Amino acid sequence: MDANGKVVGAVPGKPNNWGRWGEDDQRGTANLLTAECAQAGAALVRRGAVFSLGLPIGHGAPNIGTRSEPLHLVRRATADQVVGDTDHLGIESSDDLVVLALQASTQLDGHGHFAHEHTFYNGYWSGLMTAGQGARRLGIHHQAGGIVGRGVLLDVARHADLDPFNGAITAAMLDEVAAAHGVEIRPGDIVLVRTGWLGTWLSEPDTRRRRRQAGLTLDTIDWLAAHDVAMIAADNKTVEAVPGPEDQPILSWHIGALRDLGLLVGELFDLDALSDDCAADGVYEFLFSTAPLPIVNAVGSPLNPLVVK
Amino acid sequence: MDANGKVVGAVPGKPNNWGRWGEDDQRGTANLLTAECAQAGAALVRRGAVFSLGLPIGHGAPNIGTRSEPLHLVRRATADQVVGDTDHLGIESSDDLVVLALQASTQLDGHGHFAHEHTFYNGYWSGLMTAGQGARRLGIHHQAGGIVGRGVLLDVARHADLDPFNGAITAAMLDEVAAAHGVEIRPGDIVLVRTGWLGTWLSEPDTRRRRRQAGLTLDTIDWLAAHDVAMIAADNKTVEAVPGPEDQPILSWHIGALRDLGLLVGELFDLDALSDDCAADGVYEFLFSTAPLPIVNAVGSPLNPLVVK
Amino acid sequence: MDANGKVVGAVPGKPNNWGRWGEDDQRGTANLLTAECAQAGAALVRRGAVFSLGLPIGHGAPNIGTRSEPLHLVRRATADQVVGDTDHLGIESSDDLVVLALQASTQLDGHGHFAHEHTFYNGYWSGLMTAGQGARRLGIHHQAGGIVGRGVLLDVARHADLDPFNGAITAAMLDEVAAAHGVEIRPGDIVLVRTGWLGTWLSEPDTRRRRRQAGLTLDTIDWLAAHDVAMIAADNKTVEAVPGPEDQPILSWHIGALRDLGLLVGELFDLDALSDDCAADGVYEFLFSTAPLPIVNAVGSPLNPLVVK
Amino acid sequence: MDANGKVVGAVPGKPNNWGRWGEDDQRGTANLLTAECAQAGAALVRRGAVFSLGLPIGHGAPNIGTRSEPLHLVRRATADQVVGDTDHLGIESSDDLVVLALQASTQLDGHGHFAHEHTFYNGYWSGLMTAGQGARRLGIHHQAGGIVGRGVLLDVARHADLDPFNGAITAAMLDEVAAAHGVEIRPGDIVLVRTGWLGTWLSEPDTRRRRRQAGLTLDTIDWLAAHDVAMIAADNKTVEAVPGPEDQPILSWHIGALRDLGLLVGELFDLDALSDDCAADGVYEFLFSTAPLPIVNAVGSPLNPLVVK
Repeated sequence: MDANGKVVGAVPGKPNNWGRWGEDDQRGTANLLTAECAQAGAALVRRGAVFSLGLPIGHGAPNIGTRSEPLHLVRRATADQVVGDTDHLGIESSDDLVVLALQASTQLDGHGHFAHEHTFYNGYWSGLMTAGQGARRLGIHHQAGGIVGRGVLLDVARHADLDPFNGAITAAMLDEVAAAHGVEIRPGDIVLVRTGWLGTWLSEPDTRRRRRQAGLTLDTIDWLAAHDVAMIAADNKTVEAVPGPEDQPILSWHIGALRDLGLLVGELFDLDALSDDCAADGVYEFLFSTAPLPIVNAVGSPLNPLVVK
Repeated sequence: MDANGKVVGAVPGKPNNWGRWGEDDQRGTANLLTAECAQAGAALVRRGAVFSLGLPIGHGAPNIGTRSEPLHLVRRATADQVVGDTDHLGIESSDDLVVLALQASTQLDGHGHFAHEHTFYNGYWSGLMTAGQGARRLGIHHQAGGIVGRGVLLDVARHADLDPFNGAITAAMLDEVAAAHGVEIRPGDIVLVRTGWLGTWLSEPDTRRRRRQAGLTLDTIDWLAAHDVAMIAADNKTVEAVPGPEDQPILSWHIGALRDLGLLVGELFDLDALSDDCAADGVYEFLFSTAPLPIVNAVGSPLNPLVVK
Repeated sequence: MDANGKVVGAVPGKPNNWGRWGEDDQRGTANLLTAECAQAGAALVRRGAVFSLGLPIGHGAPNIGTRSEPLHLVRRATADQVVGDTDHLGIESSDDLVVLALQASTQLDGHGHFAHEHTFYNGYWSGLMTAGQGARRLGIHHQAGGIVGRGVLLDVARHADLDPFNGAITAAMLDEVAAAHGVEIRPGDIVLVRTGWLGTWLSEPDTRRRRRQAGLTLDTIDWLAAHDVAMIAADNKTVEAVPGPEDQPILSWHIGALRDLGLLVGELFDLDALSDDCAADGVYEFLFSTAPLPIVNAVGSPLNPLVVK
Repeated sequence: MDANGKVVGAVPGKPNNWGRWGEDDQRGTANLLTAECAQAGAALVRRGAVFSLGLPIGHGAPNIGTRSEPLHLVRRATADQVVGDTDHLGIESSDDLVVLALQASTQLDGHGHFAHEHTFYNGYWSGLMTAGQGARRLGIHHQAGGIVGRGVLLDVARHADLDPFNGAITAAMLDEVAAAHGVEIRPGDIVLVRTGWLGTWLSEPDTRRRRRQAGLTLDTIDWLAAHDVAMIAADNKTVEAVPGPEDQPILSWHIGALRDLGLLVGELFDLDALSDDCAADGVYEFLFSTAPLPIVNAVGSPLNPLVVK
């Protein structure tokens, strides 16, 4: 490790963005989100319809087993004051608190979330992410400046009648869906892929024990790189199809997306209301904006992303 | 209390919005945020410059004594894998968690946060906000759909050289500052008031024990109602001046804003970079967008609000 | 409510200990634990064999649905230092934290845990137990002085081959088991009842969804009062049989034990190793000692109780 | 590291107990707590007077800066039911939860708490204590079986009028105090040393910012080893004097006690009431009993230790 926290001689996969925005870069494809992207996104607003893509926190959510359920706890309730538990100031107020796994619901993956061969994006050493200090490099606060630009929905589920558990979404399928929607993918775009998995999870509780999940295949890494996509998000747990190819490391797409490309990756986005609207008006591009909580040295953040059409 | 959770015969202060958006309304002035507001906000984007107004979480923040400091905790560190603590799948990843008071940093106050005479906004009974179930009425999730519209900065601190500890910002002063900035306040606006308090807190640690705080006076309630402002936020802990008038209940402005008007109220917004930019280009109106975490039945939410100019 | 927090005119069930140790008493049957009890308990130590009755925390435990699983979180790991994350002092140390429901494992119920008709033990008003201040009366810290005395095991499961899910343990059965063990119950005793339920839960995961549970019947309240038992504990979730009688309020035994008698009640005690030892040497009386964590105004506490034979 | 988690060729300091109780031992001097110790302790009970040595949790406690204050949180309050928030079963009950740094109050240090040259007690590799799995060796649950035996109070503060901030307690001073008290130290003893620091902290808030602290000097490590003491505890934060010798690593006593000897170490024990009693009756030996919470793989545990005289 050098003085900057980088592993000397570390080798990224292909394609990759290591060094592209400087040896010290900790923002990855957020660098693609130029002022022009924000302008272009805002210019897409026509009707002023706003869509929120965040799942409710506290009603149960799809979650991997190692993350605890969110706990919402009340420090002081106005019911307290109704029964006479008032402070000397006579204020009637409530206050609350959460114990929240940062990736337990709709979320942004930070670049300190995934490593391979003990290196993160841009060659930072994964040993710098510790219990005591969190992600000393690539913390989610490096993305706190916000993610604003042109969003595009690729509604694969609606277009292709995808099996939410076994559907494999290839680069060719993304191109096909984009063509069907009449949109092209441009540098700096925020691409939202609808697999249908989340809607099925929400509406069909009997399916919740199924481990398989429709998602992107490994060849989409090249597609994302070739299009200089700034952010990719989906309505499933991992964006990528699970399980992945048998001859690859598990969650290989995560390695390619987070560690090699430094992509912004969003998970558990609720795209169903947006899908209905896009199907109705035929418009699949819009203003997208969100920002993680600026938790210093965190590896992920809950999000409540907004789309404006 | 009637079957809907409302106190029969409850009397709001003046001015108020009780009943204005229906007897069952739980969104307050969020109802003013029409599609036209979102359109108008987006139309203000010129340069595509994005400003994030959220304070870092974890570097210390101004906080009232009863709220605990945020705890950022690591469930699994990539350093673990460096020393050989890998699971059977060989994944190199990290995962984290926060214990977070929902109003410990940049935040949105929900309408279940403040009551008076045991009633909330629109006449709901404050006894419905309990330890066991949280805010069964007026939970922050009712605002989860997002807050998007025209934002206006009223940079009182820069205009008036306000004392950050004793400055009293009256309705007349807001009008004066708006006039100086060349902006008018329109229905559905999101008004950001800069007092200078937060910048002083951040840059002058010696002042942190001071309890007094510049902010809005009680007469601004009429001003906010008259202009049909949708959201008011400031760079201090309570928006309102502390202490308030001696002959009024403590935090009376909160009662008027949250309980009577059902206003959206934001606190601890970091407005300093935005202030510099507005002073430089003379443009004090912009696109504002944010959304609370959709925590079911919560009374507040951390925010990382975005401005696009 | 009077100035002391008591409900004027409140009526306890029968039998009860209200007023027995003073109008202000907040300790209930802990008052029965005299110095003589501690002496008598210590005098029972023969071999010096120590048994711990606490379940491991973190390997899964029987738990009612509303209590969250314990979270053990590491603030600083020695693995951090192995990978070079050392502070300026060079200390190699670790530190940890729990998010722990106080009744999620082996535990002591406090007297603020259960009310009936809005009164607690000794007539205190249950409205004094709030989100903001916890149990302002009858907090678990009133038991912090320790529970030390003569313990007696009544091994109903071994004696009677009880069905762990449907077994009803009556007062007559307690007498029968005591007689079989050759022990008598004396004032101030700590009585441990083994139902066999916990061992079944631990060894037969397939049974874990069953809601029914062997335990004490309602007539044991009279028995506990008549014998002036200081503490009752069992190897199940609620001591009492679930479900209870159809014509009674749910968990009526809890009302009788906690609210009327002010009994010390222990739950999820692991009695299996002790049971084996007692069966082997025929000695069912011993020194018992434990103490709750002195959490101010808490309603329960985890325990790791000790028996010495 | 070998297959058992031990560092090949690791060298302990002198004196040490590495290997003494087997290569696989994870209990350290808990091995000295034989059945005879428990018998001997119980035999010391005369009056049946019980003393609890745990500080209240939630009223403020001396704490090192990196540990968060305990948070006591209410999940369900009986006040909720008073205002009508009852579940369908009509139960009136409360439930609570803590967010608790395991070493934030009266506590037991586990052997995974302190390392030196990346080895723990008995040569285990300190890299086995990770964020993801906690202390995979030497977890506090290895001490869950309980600590029961003969306790001895060495009331240095009362005997020597020690400066609570600068007092250095040497081995010779321990001998002197023992002689004055008329007690000898025997193998397997639990030795409680009163420095007076905690009482000063509690009664003189103005002194709380002082960093210095009376405590044991480094030569007491030999004394503890020579006497085969099973557990040492004190009424200060670290047992040892702070700061220690300038020419030694910081907290060197901890290295000697925890890592070399595998000692049980207790901190923040409240010894003042016990001190008064011993001074009154001249008896400085007694039954001591306590047990950590059996949190799997934890490095420390809160304690509420009991003494019976």
